[in-house]
Amino acid sequence: MGWGDLGAFGEPSKETPNLDQMASEGMLFLDFYTASPLCSPSRAALLTGRLPVRNGFYTTNAHARNAYTPQDIVGGIPDSELLLPELLKKAGYISKIIGKWHLGHRPQFHPLKHGFDEWFGSPNCHFGPFDNRALPNIPVYRDWEMIGRYYEDFKIDLKTGEANLTQIYLQEALDFISKQQASQQPFFLYWAIDATHAPVYASKHFLGTSQRGLYGDAVREIDDSVGKILQHLQNLGISENTFVFFTSDNGAALISAPKQGGSNGRFLCGKQTTFEGGMREPAIAWWPGHIPAGGVSHQLGNVMDLFTTSLSLAGLQPPGDRQIDGIDLLPAILQGKLIDRPIFYYRGNEMMAVRVRLYKAHYWTWSNSWEEYSKGIDFCPGQNVSGVTTHIQEEHTKLPLLFHLGRDPGEKYPLSFASDEYERVMEQISVVVQQHKVTMVPGEPQLNVCDKAVM
Amino acid sequence: MGWGDLGAFGEPSKETPNLDQMASEGMLFLDFYTASPLCSPSRAALLTGRLPVRNGFYTTNAHARNAYTPQDIVGGIPDSELLLPELLKKAGYISKIIGKWHLGHRPQFHPLKHGFDEWFGSPNCHFGPFDNRALPNIPVYRDWEMIGRYYEDFKIDLKTGEANLTQIYLQEALDFISKQQASQQPFFLYWAIDATHAPVYASKHFLGTSQRGLYGDAVREIDDSVGKILQHLQNLGISENTFVFFTSDNGAALISAPKQGGSNGRFLCGKQTTFEGGMREPAIAWWPGHIPAGGVSHQLGNVMDLFTTSLSLAGLQPPGDRQIDGIDLLPAILQGKLIDRPIFYYRGNEMMAVRVRLYKAHYWTWSNSWEEYSKGIDFCPGQNVSGVTTHIQEEHTKLPLLFHLGRDPGEKYPLSFASDEYERVMEQISVVVQQHKVTMVPGEPQLNVCDKAVM
Repeated sequence: MGWGDLGAFGEPSKETPNLDQMASEGMLFLDFYTASPLCSPSRAALLTGRLPVRNGFYTTNAHARNAYTPQDIVGGIPDSELLLPELLKKAGYISKIIGKWHLGHRPQFHPLKHGFDEWFGSPNCHFGPFDNRALPNIPVYRDWEMIGRYYEDFKIDLKTGEANLTQIYLQEALDFISKQQASQQPFFLYWAIDATHAPVYASKHFLGTSQRGLYGDAVREIDDSVGKILQHLQNLGISENTFVFFTSDNGAALISAPKQGGSNGRFLCGKQTTFEGGMREPAIAWWPGHIPAGGVSHQLGNVMDLFTTSLSLAGLQPPGDRQIDGIDLLPAILQGKLIDRPIFYYRGNEMMAVRVRLYKAHYWTWSNSWEEYSKGIDFCPGQNVSGVTTHIQEEHTKLPLLFHLGRDPGEKYPLSFASDEYERVMEQISVVVQQHKVTMVPGEPQLNVCDKAVM
Repeated sequence: MGWGDLGAFGEPSKETPNLDQMASEGMLFLDFYTASPLCSPSRAALLTGRLPVRNGFYTTNAHARNAYTPQDIVGGIPDSELLLPELLKKAGYISKIIGKWHLGHRPQFHPLKHGFDEWFGSPNCHFGPFDNRALPNIPVYRDWEMIGRYYEDFKIDLKTGEANLTQIYLQEALDFISKQQASQQPFFLYWAIDATHAPVYASKHFLGTSQRGLYGDAVREIDDSVGKILQHLQNLGISENTFVFFTSDNGAALISAPKQGGSNGRFLCGKQTTFEGGMREPAIAWWPGHIPAGGVSHQLGNVMDLFTTSLSLAGLQPPGDRQIDGIDLLPAILQGKLIDRPIFYYRGNEMMAVRVRLYKAHYWTWSNSWEEYSKGIDFCPGQNVSGVTTHIQEEHTKLPLLFHLGRDPGEKYPLSFASDEYERVMEQISVVVQQHKVTMVPGEPQLNVCDKAVM
């Protein structure tokens, strides 16, 4: 899902009344980022509070290469990483993941080995259908047990776009919440649906209801489901004890647009890129009685902050034995403070760009290769900013491309290298980048090796 | 100002709290258009309820040429046109225009000759400073009398961007409203400020306050002023008797962006073009006690509708002796109805495109000429949709380019000519266009002749 997919963020069909209401009752984050322009690394970062380059969710097979966890990936989340649910146990939390795990599918990477108490969902995306011989269909798990496969036991009709997976995931969420409330046990629910990921689906009730086509139907179903989850919390009388955060793991996939991909609003490019369209996300915090209704925050936030913030809510400290990139957002959420911190934009093993306050410096630019592009794969359809959306990996480390995201959120007008502003700002940014680089200890890359045997 | 310039429409800095509140207390129009991608014709259409090609605000000097009213224009609003303030007199309304008139500056075109009772402002944009010999600075009028000139008596500092014009216009508005309320006289106020037009200015209090630079400062000052006007209506106890509508006369001028031009959100191109970015406008209706708070409308609306709607509010009928293009929006505003009507996109003398429900068909495409483009004049910076943002006037009258604006608001993916959808939809649209063309009686073009003598 992209920044521009919600009514509250300016989607012209404005079809997300529940998420818009969530924002009007809570706090809208306008400058919130993911840790990677791709799914697996972003989710690993969310659960570890650490950049993918630290927690191993990257590859060194090629420079600045985006990598994720296909069916034949050998790697996954290392045991040495501490995941949010593992830590929350210390405060008595029961944790459940519903939906896509994406942090490895071999036995040692199973979510129940990394702190979750319950799981309903799949290790991978719902790609398929496959022949189920050379290539198996993606399995669906309940806890330790595989209970079926997508397309076989969990139907997805690619012709009509019909699948009731979001409804199943919704019911799982409502049931889990009810059970936890009944047993008076604090809980962490990671509702990791994958409904707007291609191939896009929606359940029958939502098919054909959106002005935006099938993708919009999927967004509407997510919106409706979030509304039902929030309502459920209110009905159970636990909304004032429950912190809810809505966001996405990467920008809308414009290569799949318009049928299978969404909108990044006026931001440049989409998923797979380190332009704003690839990494700036819709984000809403909700906690009635605590977060002032109708709040708007320009705090630079990141999915990794949800790790630290959740620990803070549970009265816990983040681990002290490792670098944690996520910060505690509670001062921003509860007191409206602005915490000065940079945002790093990585592709694989390379820091492509950095944002410091309103300025963003690109040290490397790349959309995709000419080879891919000439096959019709376009991460920036209809957008071409000369010298910015480059089809070769262009190095700017000596003289980074600098943008002011307030005046130019679309990254179209780099500042003049000769300007005083450029010199003054780059001086500050250089210090931030240097500090980041000298203290960077990359983790063992987990996404280097594929092997059909592990399927 | 462009569709994307307000927080309520997804501007990422979200700096328009007053307009956003106006929307949350009133009704947001997401599919509202101007009648021309340029200022003068758009304003003529607003005040006559008629397309520029009917009321004469176009040129036949060249095909599809945008034309406006520079200082040496000979033409202006014809006496044969009936303007909104003229008609409102029948219901006892007193009318005032504050700001830019733009419908001709020769004596016969003076706003007080066309129904307005009061005027404070200028016949043209605040271009300048000029040498005031060969080329005079633009005059500022109070009613019949010229009281000074821009840059001379009404300062605009192009170096700092400082000018207190919006404050002067605001005070004029507040005073006029107070006076009318005191005399218990119904009023029509046309608050036609030109603050976001290049050269952009803001008053000292607002300079440097926006994340967006000087353009954002100007938007903030407008936002603040609108808030003060609405507050004034409430303080005087007449808000429930006063219908207020906020919109713009054309999309943001991307040729001037980012320093002197705003945002059209995710829409294609800007001012001067018939793509969505050139003609879809931010629009908010406000009328406490009548319009349900927080309303959102997908009614296809047009500035010309404000003519007919205003007459309707005053209990008057639009003139029956001529074609009126504006419709009465009250059923949409008060009862949430959707009235089926097309939107025509003109450049000069040519109908370039038409929107029917969610579909838009381009009969001609053009951004600007290669000659202009090669000089660096770009109406679509960073945007290039092959075969759509063409630099020659490309005719598609035999096989129009068809877009679905719900699935593809950015006009990037024309429907396949071979699809059933294309055939079905174009059949309906062709009827609409044919009806429009056979009944079209163009007015005498007013913008054909320039003559330095008339300055």
